[in-house]
Formats: sequence, C-alpha cells, structure tokens
Amino acid sequence: MRMTDLIIRKKDGQALTSEEIHYLIQGYTQGEIPDYQMSAFLMAVVLRGMDTRETLDLTMAMAHSGDMVDLSSLGPYTADKHSTGGVGDKTSLVLCPMVAACGVKMAKMSGRGLGHTGGTIDKLESFPGFSTVMSPERFLEIADTVGFVIAGQTANLAPADKKMYALRDVTGTVSSIPLIVSSIMAKKLASGARTIVLDVKTGSGAFMETEEDAFALAREMVDVGKQAGRNMAAVVTDMDQPLGFAVGNALEVREAIGVLRGEDVPDLRELCLVLGSNILTRSGICASDSDARARLERTLADGSALRRLAEMVQAQGGDPAAVYDPSLLPQAPAVLSVPAPVSGYIAAIEARDVGRVSMLLGGGRATKEDVIDLSVGVLLRAKVGDTVTAGRELAQIHAATEQAARQAREDLLRCYRFSSQPPQRPPFIRGVVS
Amino acid sequence: MRMTDLIIRKKDGQALTSEEIHYLIQGYTQGEIPDYQMSAFLMAVVLRGMDTRETLDLTMAMAHSGDMVDLSSLGPYTADKHSTGGVGDKTSLVLCPMVAACGVKMAKMSGRGLGHTGGTIDKLESFPGFSTVMSPERFLEIADTVGFVIAGQTANLAPADKKMYALRDVTGTVSSIPLIVSSIMAKKLASGARTIVLDVKTGSGAFMETEEDAFALAREMVDVGKQAGRNMAAVVTDMDQPLGFAVGNALEVREAIGVLRGEDVPDLRELCLVLGSNILTRSGICASDSDARARLERTLADGSALRRLAEMVQAQGGDPAAVYDPSLLPQAPAVLSVPAPVSGYIAAIEARDVGRVSMLLGGGRATKEDVIDLSVGVLLRAKVGDTVTAGRELAQIHAATEQAARQAREDLLRCYRFSSQPPQRPPFIRGVVS
Repeated sequence: MRMTDLIIRKKDGQALTSEEIHYLIQGYTQGEIPDYQMSAFLMAVVLRGMDTRETLDLTMAMAHSGDMVDLSSLGPYTADKHSTGGVGDKTSLVLCPMVAACGVKMAKMSGRGLGHTGGTIDKLESFPGFSTVMSPERFLEIADTVGFVIAGQTANLAPADKKMYALRDVTGTVSSIPLIVSSIMAKKLASGARTIVLDVKTGSGAFMETEEDAFALAREMVDVGKQAGRNMAAVVTDMDQPLGFAVGNALEVREAIGVLRGEDVPDLRELCLVLGSNILTRSGICASDSDARARLERTLADGSALRRLAEMVQAQGGDPAAVYDPSLLPQAPAVLSVPAPVSGYIAAIEARDVGRVSMLLGGGRATKEDVIDLSVGVLLRAKVGDTVTAGRELAQIHAATEQAARQAREDLLRCYRFSSQPPQRPPFIRGVVS
Repeated sequence: MRMTDLIIRKKDGQALTSEEIHYLIQGYTQGEIPDYQMSAFLMAVVLRGMDTRETLDLTMAMAHSGDMVDLSSLGPYTADKHSTGGVGDKTSLVLCPMVAACGVKMAKMSGRGLGHTGGTIDKLESFPGFSTVMSPERFLEIADTVGFVIAGQTANLAPADKKMYALRDVTGTVSSIPLIVSSIMAKKLASGARTIVLDVKTGSGAFMETEEDAFALAREMVDVGKQAGRNMAAVVTDMDQPLGFAVGNALEVREAIGVLRGEDVPDLRELCLVLGSNILTRSGICASDSDARARLERTLADGSALRRLAEMVQAQGGDPAAVYDPSLLPQAPAVLSVPAPVSGYIAAIEARDVGRVSMLLGGGRATKEDVIDLSVGVLLRAKVGDTVTAGRELAQIHAATEQAARQAREDLLRCYRFSSQPPQRPPFIRGVVS
C-alpha cells in the first residue's frame, strides 16, 4: 500500500477501504507517513468528502490509536456529553450533578479553553484547591462513589487526533464534517461511556454557523456513534447569543450553582433538561421523556444535584463551602455597570464578540501559555428579545481594574443591536437527532 | 500574510492575488513555508483550479525563483521546443538541425529519461565522446556558431519547480493543468528563447490521455507564454502508438539520422515539419506556413540539416562519423525477430507498454540511479493500420542477451491488438493551438 495512491484515490472522489484507512492512521501516528502527505490527503477529504462508512472507519482508527478507557466497572449506566463549544457554556457543571443524582455515572475528561470559548476545567478551578489531576484509579473511584468526575486527560486518548488536529490547524483543513466528526467521536469513543449526548451549537458564536451544517454534523456523529455500538443523541442549540447570562469562569460557576438551587436561567436549564432526559432515556433508565424530565427536575427541587456537585468538588480536593455560599468564589476587584444606550428591544448579542470581551479582560486564553483570571467576565442582565430602558443596567463588567472595565464596556456595547420592534427569534432548541 | 489563510482562500475556490502567489513561491523556495502547507495548497489547486491570470503569476514566480537565461547575444531568432513526453520521441534530434539550418538558434537545456519515456540527452550519448556538460559561455558559443546546442542544465532553472515537482510526485498532486502549465512554462520562460513551440501528446502513452485535456493544456500554455511576451504555438499529437518505428536510445538516433537523410518516417517527419514551420512563422522568419515548410524540406533535401547535426555532435565532443555511418552507433549483441502471430491489420500498439519493454531491456530508467544500455530497444516494422502476415517480421528486439530478447518478445506481443478490418484512426496531428 502506498500513501500516494491513497491520496490520489481520495482526490479522484473514491472511497477508501477500512484497511486503507487503518493503514494511513497507523502510519501517520507512528511517524511513517510524513506531514506533507497527510496534509494533502486531508485537503482531498475536505474537498471530496467521505461517506459514513469511511467516517466510521476513520473514527475507529483514530480512537484505537491510543488507550481505550474501560468504564465497565461503573456498571451499565455510563454517559458522556460533548459540546462543540460556545460562549457562556457551563452546561456540564449543571448537567453532570443532575444526571449523577439519577444514577448515571459520568466519568468525563475535559479540556481547557482557547479563544473565545471557555473550558470546563478552567471554570472548576474557581473552587479553591480544586484539582483535575489524578490517577486513572482515583478517576474511576470518584465516578463510582460520587457519580461524576471531571478530570484532565488521565489516559492517552486518540493521539492520532492530537497530531492531525495540529496539522489541520495550519493547513486550512479544519472545516470538514468527516474530519470534525472523527476528531470529536474518536475521543468520545475512546473515553468509554455507553451513552453519549452531543450539544451541537449553531449561530454566529458557533463553529457551525448555519443550522444546516449543524444538523449534518449532528446526524453524522450520531450515526457513527450508533455504528460503534453506543447509545446516541445530539441536540442542535442556538449560539447566536451567549448561553445563560454569565460569561467568565467564576461568574459561570455561580450561575450553574444558581440553576442547581432552582433559579431560572431559561436556556441553560432547558438545555440541561433536554440533554439529561436524552441520557436517561437512551441509556434505558427512563422509559419516556416526560418521566426523565420529571426525575431531573426533582434533583433540582430536592437539592440532590447540588449535593452531588459539593461531593464532587470535595472529592477532587476543592472546598465545597463555595457550593453553598458562592460569595466564596473568586470576585473581581472592579465591577462596572453598563447602562443601556437606548430604550427598546435587544435584537442581537454577538456571542463570539462577548467571548472576546471576556478573553481580553483576562478570562480566556489567546495562546495556550496564557494564565487566566478566574474572577473576570461579563454578566448580562437581559437577553435577545428582552426590553431595555435607556440608562438602566444592561450588563456588568467584572474586571481586574477600573481601566480594563471601561475599555471592556466600549467593546461590549459593540456586541449589541437594538430595535424598536420585537426581534424574530428561532427556538433555542433547534432540534434533537437520534 | 499567513500561508494558512492562502490555503483556505484557495480551498474555498477563490483566486489569489499576484502578491500572494509570489509570497508563497518565494517562501516555499526559501524554506520558510513547510512542505506540509505547500502540499495542502497544491491539493486545493488540483481540486479548485486556477484561472489564467493566477497560472501566469504562478509561472512567472516559479521562473524567477532562479536564473533567467539571457539569449539576447544570439540575436532575435531564438527558439525552444518542449514535448510533454512520449515513447520513441526523437523529435529534437531532427527538428533542431532543420530549424538551425534555417537561421534560428536553439539553445536547449534538456533532461534525462525516467519511466517509459526516454530523454534527449540519453539518446545523444549514443555518439561516442558526446558530452552535455559545459560552461554557460560554451553553451552560448555552440548555439551561436552551430545554430543549436543540447546541454544538461547549465543554469539554476526554476528551483521552485524542482522542489514543487518532487513534492507533487509523492502527494498525488501531479495531474492539474495549472500546475503542469506552470512547471513546464516556468522552465521554458527561464530558458530565454523568444519563440516556444510545444508538442502536447495525447493518447494512452501520454500524460494527457484524452484529447480534450491535451487541448486544454495546450491552450493554457500558449496563453501564459503569450502573456509573458513570447511567440507561442502548441501542436497536439497522437501518442496512442510510439512515434516513428524505433524505441531505444541508439535505435532512435539512427532513425533521426534517417529522416535527416531523406528517409520517410511519416509521423516523425510530419511532426518536425509542423513544429518547425510554426517556429519559422511565429518568430517572423517566414511569412507563411507553405514558405516555412518548403524551406524546412530543403534542409533535408540538400543535406544542410544533417551537416548541422554533425557539427553539433563535434562541437559537443562527440565523433561525427556516426552521423554519416550509423553502424558506428552502439549495437545490441542480440537481435531477435518477432514474427506476426496472425494475419490482418494492426489495430493498436500500446505506446506506454512498448516503452516499458524497452525500459526492461535496459534502455530506460526505473529509478534515477539506473545506468542505461544505449544499444537496446524495439524496432517496429509496421504501425497501426498496416497489414501484417502471420510469420512475417512484425518487429525486432535489440537486447543484451538472447534470453532478455526472448522475454521481451512475449512482453512486446502483448502490446499489440490485431483485427480483420482496417481500424478507425484519428489524424496524427490533432490540431495546432496558437
């Protein structure tokens, strides 16, 4: 088998065999196939595509390029959730405790944030002492006893993906559904959960800007996961504006705790109920969506989800007091109110730009080496479709200094559009693929 | 300017600016842009194409990546010829002396053969003592005094092409009209001739298998050459069967000498007359095709073309006696007659396969390091459309040993198809683009 021939076959629009796909992933991971051949192949895939069988083969080959985590000791009800990345996305902090309280084990390996979206691990470090570094044994133990754990990578997951992603990033080959599917699903399959739910964001703040692309990506990931024998569902959700009201690490943790305590953050709460009920029904714990939903709502009402979060923070070395008293979380020295410049309706809040405002305040990383400030960020007071009154508080800036806050206020106001008429709004949940 | 952005622009089907194309060729030649980015870009060009303006910019950037040869000391009538490569193609050995005898200077840099097609330099080394290594000064001196010279590269021509070609060869990015055009034309433009004629082969033994592709390539090369200020013409010719009767280095030299002495090898003679008359008319030496043709035929009839060949062989250190007595050329020890297996018409002779037979006899290189045997090859006795009689000589094998000859006989017979009806044949010259 010659790599050049495989490149030519793909360039000519032909499908590669399973054997060929395994050959090229193994050869590339082991350094026998050079970057310059892989990048030509990747560009051919971007422009010629791959069918579902090829995408499955690619995903499986990438998943098997490293460790395959064995979660069988946790019993039959194991789940994982992946989001394609958004601004203000603190879903895992709410969803995992709720689902754990229903008897599903979530043993999650998560990442840090880069660019305009934040990472769950960064957010969790808002709890003093919290650690995401642990042995594989301790990882399984916390998942088993608490019901969920969120760690950095404790295993060598899909090294082929790591190497390919670095190459795609500098060769213009990021935007391709088969390549995105295989990158996400290889890591999820290697992570070992029986049930996987996906949150595919669409809109100006998302990787998939159009709804059509988002559904195509969701469909393909669900198909690949099912063929790999997992229970699958994907939810396509709005990322035209930030999720919830808080953007910034400690601010988002506080909002997540609020939802677990019963506060109403409509889009965030609804997203967790939809993702959670898909986990409960797909994994076979609940027979119907309404059953699942009722059970999940009970975990909020009776405080059992909040207790799970406190137990998990404690198990991972953090101080659980902040779960019950969020004022113990990092607080920014400078808080500046941003008044609405006009009266009327909020027509748009550009999610990506709000993410950048938070990043520039120090709450996110422009490069992997940046150290982030957990306390800073943006707190919205109203969302798209709400009415505002000129001079009343539109949002708050949480910053390290007054000067940084004033600069951010200018930037934040540019994220908004206002109108005198109520804006047309598509539903927050665009659809579920299963 | 970031290479990744240029790759993405081309992936999305956009045209790059002149500045961007110069940036990427210069960056790649100087080693600032890595192979893995260039190969992704090349694949995007293969699948998305380039318009004529981009192809011209690419060609000019590649031409200017090394030396630009100055032939102005040779006067206004300088010409060059390029063939896209075929089996039995000894055209330069006939064309250059004819054209030189008409007052046009041809200062050619040529290459060695690889695979199933031979190189002009290999063929010329059939003359004992002949050398293609010389100083740039001597190169110009021979062109000036004899009228033509055929050397290995005496200048650093288009190093960007050399580097890109090596990369294309192993990344499945060879077959792309803009990339083929720029590769050929960069070297031709850097070589400095005012008039350039191109022989674009089509058919099973050619790089461009379909006539449509061959005409598209011819059109694009002519357009680029004209926009670079050169006199241009391209001839699209048949390469379904070998050109002429001889395939193999010394055998081809002997056939070329035969045509220069007035022997009739129809396709080869016609090709030289068409290419030659295009050189004479495009460069302004002759006013009409019929004038040019008559003048070229005279160089054959009066022996002036043959004399030019002898002078050139002598000037480049070879023994010119062989020009007048071809029995002095290398002769194979074993000559085996191949009788026709049936009576009827020759329906096809697969050029590429005949080329392989000659290569396997030792007359060509499978890898760059192979040493070739100048004496071996195949001598056809009849061409497509001719009738043959079972048991009468169809071809001769010239080989190093009887055993090699017998093996080659089997292989050669597999190159033929016979029929009881005369085959449909398209004209040898498919058309001229100018």
